[in-house]
This record gives sequence, structure tokens and C-alpha cells, in this order.
Amino acid sequence: MSRYWSDRVSRLDPYVPGEQTESKSVTKLNTNESPFGPSEHVIQAVSRCVGEDLRLYPDPRSLALRDAIASVEGVNSDNVFVGNGSDEVLAHAFQAFFSSSRPILFPDITYSFYPSYCRLFGLSYEQIPLNDDFLVSVESYSKQNGGVILPNPNAPTGIDLGLAAIRKLLENQSEQVVVIDEAYVDFGAESAATLLGEFPNLLVTRSFSKSYALAGLRVGYALGQAELIEGLHRVKDSFNSYPVDRLASAGAIAAIQDRDYLDTTRRKIVSNREQLISGLSELGFLVLPSATNFVFVQHEQMSANSLNQELRKVDILVRHFTRPARIEDFLRITVGTEAMVDKLLKNLKLILRR
Amino acid sequence: MSRYWSDRVSRLDPYVPGEQTESKSVTKLNTNESPFGPSEHVIQAVSRCVGEDLRLYPDPRSLALRDAIASVEGVNSDNVFVGNGSDEVLAHAFQAFFSSSRPILFPDITYSFYPSYCRLFGLSYEQIPLNDDFLVSVESYSKQNGGVILPNPNAPTGIDLGLAAIRKLLENQSEQVVVIDEAYVDFGAESAATLLGEFPNLLVTRSFSKSYALAGLRVGYALGQAELIEGLHRVKDSFNSYPVDRLASAGAIAAIQDRDYLDTTRRKIVSNREQLISGLSELGFLVLPSATNFVFVQHEQMSANSLNQELRKVDILVRHFTRPARIEDFLRITVGTEAMVDKLLKNLKLILRR
Repeated sequence: MSRYWSDRVSRLDPYVPGEQTESKSVTKLNTNESPFGPSEHVIQAVSRCVGEDLRLYPDPRSLALRDAIASVEGVNSDNVFVGNGSDEVLAHAFQAFFSSSRPILFPDITYSFYPSYCRLFGLSYEQIPLNDDFLVSVESYSKQNGGVILPNPNAPTGIDLGLAAIRKLLENQSEQVVVIDEAYVDFGAESAATLLGEFPNLLVTRSFSKSYALAGLRVGYALGQAELIEGLHRVKDSFNSYPVDRLASAGAIAAIQDRDYLDTTRRKIVSNREQLISGLSELGFLVLPSATNFVFVQHEQMSANSLNQELRKVDILVRHFTRPARIEDFLRITVGTEAMVDKLLKNLKLILRR
Repeated sequence: MSRYWSDRVSRLDPYVPGEQTESKSVTKLNTNESPFGPSEHVIQAVSRCVGEDLRLYPDPRSLALRDAIASVEGVNSDNVFVGNGSDEVLAHAFQAFFSSSRPILFPDITYSFYPSYCRLFGLSYEQIPLNDDFLVSVESYSKQNGGVILPNPNAPTGIDLGLAAIRKLLENQSEQVVVIDEAYVDFGAESAATLLGEFPNLLVTRSFSKSYALAGLRVGYALGQAELIEGLHRVKDSFNSYPVDRLASAGAIAAIQDRDYLDTTRRKIVSNREQLISGLSELGFLVLPSATNFVFVQHEQMSANSLNQELRKVDILVRHFTRPARIEDFLRITVGTEAMVDKLLKNLKLILRR
């Protein structure tokens, strides 16, 4: 605490990101990064931009990147907003669209950044409980609200929601903006982007950090009707004119254009996920159904806390959330390469045998 | 306007950045970029990081970069905050420290992003007039306020304030945070960083976009006592965990460590500035005294609007602010290379001779 902090800052409860380490001996399965590097085209495109032009500001409206995204998504560039990671895009969306007079609705078990945004922007919120199977039931969102945000698939559960359920949610929410956070959509869920034409209050957000293997470059985007995108630009231009740097822009353009690489790597990740799930089940883990590049698991005998500590001793990092209480006995484990999956399963076997 | 925008977003008055263009035929003197590329060490350091590790998130606390800055500035890393350009650092500072119950004070002629931040964060403000010579008089800031922000040197005037005046300002402001925005300090002004030990309410912000020639990478920083820096981290961690990407971090570290390159390029810019000022004076311009990499000028006969349009016809971009009325007859012109200065002066001569 400090006498110089504003009242709001004193009341914040900041998000705590997963541990980052540069150690090459660690098997890092804690922050859902891709186990594969980015496409070779990305490396070439970024390398070409490392030069004298770094002295110049990037395009403040990021038109080349927005055009590239629009072309792949089958929309116009005025339906695309880009930012410094989807976390920044989400932050701007909370500020641009959510109302402070009624609570923002999101699941009780979800991306833990949402309550942090609400505190930062002075928004009240209500967490809607997932059902006993950790599923979102959209009926529970039919109440007065200042906006709704749902990740699809949800994190950290990994469970996706079908398009019919999202349509039903939107049909009951025409007054307020609904944000569908699709950070993990490329690993098996249906995107709500196909509904954008029908619902002017729908915003879909995406990330280059997972399926495009560019967590280190910080690029995310939002898709929506032009009015919503203009609202995001108004916030951005009151906050930071140039959020996407020259190298990030070049890398993201090359990444979204390399569809073959995206398809190859996500197929591998889905295949490794099935191998991981089968191995974990054999070891006595309950594994929630995953449509993502991670699994959310609970062991029948050993606590998540002990497993987390034992894995750390052998240089394997996974993510353990201690809040809310209902998930404190779960671990979230990123799907790695085959070698990483093998290493994890072998070590778990040793730990559980003791 | 949209029914889906929050009330605050409907009332925003976003900042309008200077035009960016990728055209190589344009002489770009409108956004105060360095006319020289970044140091060769920067190019090498960034190039080395373009690879598989881009799949991994950056360090959310940017410790390597903060250590590098701390070492050059003679402080500890907990006295350093880094962000995605100094615009983001400033935005976080407005939210972290400025109070909504009393007006924020800044000059009437200054960086036009400040009122945009205030509207975004719901802060009231009072613009304190510069005197007839476009100077800040710190006595005018001795009134009830929710915080003070001053650029030193000021933009777009280019005029700097001595350290004695800043000390006097701080001595009268112990209750509220004072931000000194030093984006242009490397071109001749005295930094207030030497006062950080004495004043726990002083925050100094800096940019890699001007003297380090890295506008395209988006890195800025703040220096202050640890409590203020922790306040900025609380806001950042409620907004975006990873604002500085891997390549930006590598580039900024190499840039701040290459003191020779910084000294060489800023000496050249100061020398070109003097050449530019002398040429402009001969052509009948009033040139305000500049401690920056730009000059703020008014012609005795031709309007700024006409000059701006004529220069644009010959592919020379300068910046013309139409607000407030007191500066609408001024142009802000970035100091370029010797060749750029020559080209500008030759073209102005032709335009004025007609």
C-alpha cells in the first residue's frame, strides 16, 4: 500500500501469470504455449523487418495485419481489431462495452483475469456456477446484466460449448455485449465467428499465443461488427496509439497466412492430447473432456498440491490454481510434444508408485 | 456512436497520431522519429531472438530489461517499470496515481494525449496556460489538484524547464504524484531522475522511441521509488501480464547498453538542429528555443496551414496542430539527417519565394 496509489489501485487483485523460466532443462507445461516453434515463414518475415525501419512508428491502425486476418476470417478489415495480446484486447472490450450499472456475468471457474479487469475498471460482476460436470449452462445467464464474457472452450476446464448453446445465449442477450473468448478455439471447438452477421452485440476474441506459437510476440485480435470494432479503436486511441509493434505485426501476418503449418501443428497437438489423456487415465486420473491444448485433471489418490510439488522436483512445471476451492485438487497440464508427454507420464508413474 | 458503447467510450476524444507511411519517397518529419536507424548491436540482439523461443511468453516482470535500465540509471530494478511504449506507461500512471476528486494539472499547450487519458479514466483536468513566451511557470501549479504531469522538455514547444523549477514544483506538491514525461530529455534537458531519492511522489517517464531510434519496437519506462513502481505493476497485472514482447525486450536492452551509439547520434541530431534553426531563421521563421529533436516554428508571412500543404505537395511531412488556437500558426518539424534538413530548407525557400 502507498498513500500515492489511487483508491482503485489499492483495491485491485491483480492476475498472477504462470511462472516463466528461461531454463532449458525445465519441461514447461504450465502456460499452454505451443510445444512447436512458429512457422518458418514467420521467422523469415520477422527477420526481414529487423533493420533500420525500427526507427519508425508502426501503422497505428495496423491495416496490413487487419487485412491479413480479415482475409482468412472472411470479413472486412473494419470487422477486425488487433492488440498487444488478447489480454489487452479483452481489457479494452471490458472498458468499451461493459456497463458499470449492472453486474458482468461469467463462470465461477474461468480465466481468472476477468475479475481483475472488473476491479480495474470499477465494474461489478457475478460469477455463474458451472454445473456439477463443469459445464456452462447458458440458461443461467438469462438475468439482468451489464455484459457477458465466456471463454469457449472454457479455461482451465478445457470443455467447449456447442454453437447452438452460444446462439441461445445471444438470443437472450440483445441489449448487452457478449464476448466469446476463443483463445483455444483452434484445438477442436466451433467458432462463434459464423454468428457475427446475425448478432451486432457479439465480439469474438482470439490469440496468436497458442495455436500460432507466438506467445513471445504478443498479438491478439477481436472480430465483430464495425460499430463494436470502432468502440475498441476509441479506447485504444485514448490509451496507446501503437500497441502492435513492427516485428509483431510482420510475424502475425506470416503466421495467419501459413494455414498448412497451423493445420499440421494443431493436428499433432490434438493427437498428443489423446495420447496424454489415455496415459493419465491409466494412471488413475480423472480427465475432463478437452477441446484445447491442455488437460484439467484430478488424481483419485494424490492431491494436486503434492503432485505439483513432486513434478517441480523433477523440473516439470504444470499449473495449480488454488482458487476457487472446487478446483484446488485439479492440475492444468499443457499438451507438449510426444517426448514431453512421455516424460510427464513416466515421472507421474514414478511419483504415484512411491 | 453505438448503443453498445459504454457511456465513457461515447464521451472519449481519442488522440490522433501523426500520419504513418511506408513510402520511401516521403521525407518524414512529422512524428519525431530518429533519422538514424538503431544501433547495430540492437539489430544483432533482436535477430538472435527471432527463433523457436517466440513460442514462449516473455518474462511478465521484464526483469532483464529492468536490470539493464536500472544499471544505466544508477537505481535498482524495483525503481523501474517498463511498458509497451511510454504512452502505455503514462496511461497506467494516470490510472494508478491520479485522483478523480480533484483536477489533474498540465499545460494548455502540451502532449495532446493527456486529456485523452483523463477522459478514458474519468479524471477531471485543468490546463494551466503557458506564459507569453510559451514557458511553464511552476508557480501556477500551486493549487489543489489530483496530480500534475509535465513533459520536460515540453512538446510541441520543445522548450525545457531547469531542474530548479522542477524542484520548486515538487516542494509544493508533496500530497500528489508529479509525473515528469521525459520522452525528449536526451537532446539537451536536465533529467529529474536525480531528484528521485528526495521525492517519493516523483515519477519520471522515458521512451525508447526517440533517442534510441526504436519507435517501431514500442518500449518505454518509468523511474520512481519502489512504492510507485509497485502501483504501476498492480495496474499492469490487472490489464495485460506481458506488455513487452521478447524482441522488444532484447532490442531495448541492447539499445540502452550501447552508450556510444546514443551519444554519437544525439550529438548529430543536436548539430543538425542548430543547422535547421539557423536556416529557418534566415527564411523568416520564428523558432522557439528547442532542447528536443524537433523545432516549433511560425513564419512571419505564410500561414502554417499553407506551408503544411505546400510541403506535402513535395512529399515532406511535418506536423500541424490546429488546437489550441494559440498554436494553430505553428508547425512542428522533426530534426532529420543533414540531407533531410537541406531538402526541407531548399523546398521552404522555393515555397516562400513564390
